Amino acid sequence: MKLNFIAQRVLMSNAYLMPFSRARMFSSSSMSAVKRWEGGVSMIQGASRGIGLEFVRQLLEKNDKGYVVATCRNPNGATGLLELKNKFAERLDIHQLDLTIESTMEETAKCLREKYGYLNLLVNASGILSIPDVLKPETTLSKVERASLLLAYEINAVGPVLVVKHMWPLLKVEGGSGMNRDFAIVANISARVGSIGDNRLGGWHSYRASKTALNQLTKTISVEFARKKDPIICILLHPGTVDTDLSRPFQGNVPEGKLFTKEFSVQKLLSIINNAKGSDNGKFFAWDGQEIPW
Amino acid sequence: MKLNFIAQRVLMSNAYLMPFSRARMFSSSSMSAVKRWEGGVSMIQGASRGIGLEFVRQLLEKNDKGYVVATCRNPNGATGLLELKNKFAERLDIHQLDLTIESTMEETAKCLREKYGYLNLLVNASGILSIPDVLKPETTLSKVERASLLLAYEINAVGPVLVVKHMWPLLKVEGGSGMNRDFAIVANISARVGSIGDNRLGGWHSYRASKTALNQLTKTISVEFARKKDPIICILLHPGTVDTDLSRPFQGNVPEGKLFTKEFSVQKLLSIINNAKGSDNGKFFAWDGQEIPW
Repeated sequence: MKLNFIAQRVLMSNAYLMPFSRARMFSSSSMSAVKRWEGGVSMIQGASRGIGLEFVRQLLEKNDKGYVVATCRNPNGATGLLELKNKFAERLDIHQLDLTIESTMEETAKCLREKYGYLNLLVNASGILSIPDVLKPETTLSKVERASLLLAYEINAVGPVLVVKHMWPLLKVEGGSGMNRDFAIVANISARVGSIGDNRLGGWHSYRASKTALNQLTKTISVEFARKKDPIICILLHPGTVDTDLSRPFQGNVPEGKLFTKEFSVQKLLSIINNAKGSDNGKFFAWDGQEIPW
Repeated sequence: MKLNFIAQRVLMSNAYLMPFSRARMFSSSSMSAVKRWEGGVSMIQGASRGIGLEFVRQLLEKNDKGYVVATCRNPNGATGLLELKNKFAERLDIHQLDLTIESTMEETAKCLREKYGYLNLLVNASGILSIPDVLKPETTLSKVERASLLLAYEINAVGPVLVVKHMWPLLKVEGGSGMNRDFAIVANISARVGSIGDNRLGGWHSYRASKTALNQLTKTISVEFARKKDPIICILLHPGTVDTDLSRPFQGNVPEGKLFTKEFSVQKLLSIINNAKGSDNGKFFAWDGQEIPW
């Protein structure tokens, strides 16, 4: 954003010296960035339900400022988001984004660039574990299928990373007047079962491997972020076992007190995000702030 | 294989009491298992060149016993394997196996079952890092492509795991009279860049993530192997940077003395395999025997 700040100063002092087209080119992003989006701009990818929807709700309800871009595959069917839109019309945008179609990420990035000019927080909250008749967590190697491995990888690892790729040019610290952060932040929702070191139970091959790959990809991105001048950090978050559609078929084995509500988990995760330090870049945290081994 | 040993004893002592069809049913596998395949049966997947071909060569040349099944996508073009076949006709079988076509794995498993009845060692040696005009190791997130992520995953992680799935029923300790092992062993060739904890340089997103996923999948398999009665272990091996087609475009940055010959690397890896203990199940070793962090 240094360029924009400089551009803005130039614009303020020398606008009258500049040709119209050049002044116009600078004005839309730099002026709007400072003037309009107090509280910052957050994007939640995978926001139609579960943890993603709860992120949107808490970002809107628990702050009196800040703008949220919620993305999902099918906005028309996202009743939870549409209810929030009724309540927070000005502060919530809903965009169609399909993790398997890169053009929908480009389109979302374009809209964001035109309306807001930057993004302070990106949460990749989507994830698949089981889909009736399509994807089933494997109980044994003999049930591992090529299609399941590839599908889980595409949705849980490839998609989120491509979203980061397309949003990267927008990720800026600017606009965060109410955010107490001097960097932009990417939070990818991972899972403890993606930890190799912590894998004592086996099973769930497709899901595990996809989350482990997401961990590696996020770590790889963090190395590049650390080298660039725009301050961005990316972290990985394990939400715990949360009472959502994703975990519902598997809640039977969860010990008492270990099945969290969405409200509790997201409150914890937002606390980690809001208290993140630059040195957290590339780290993997559980809901309670404890680091998880790779 | 306990069943086979018992079956054989029954056959020896009571053959004259058994109906012909029953004696025949037992004889082909149990007799052949003990009589014919001294030195054990090893399968090298990805054997047409590089590290895989060198595994085949050393297993044949450095032992005077033992049988090798070498698989690759295009046996007719595998000149190195065909040369070895001329020299070791009896001890080397070459099978067509394509990591993207599961039926070729089933076919190989069927042939193995019929001819040998078991498998003592399986090495997944295949791997892709770069393919001109198709796959290029990424230097930055902005060059990460959906197709590259999926292709590397399919070849480096999905394929080897499906090979283990299909060979699993054949993996037995039996037949290892010259092998000094009381378990069958699966060795998946991974790479240090697949380590998340050791990732300081970033880049190579597709390759890194695929090898990290292979690590997680191998660890997951190891948990299941540890629970079953057939003693099998699986390990992950980092061969070092070896002078092969895979590493050739990237050898410029390798420090002096750190670019290994195939001969040296495979000698080290075979030493790890031959000295493996049951407690090594699920571990990730570098060529020098040091464990690599996840």
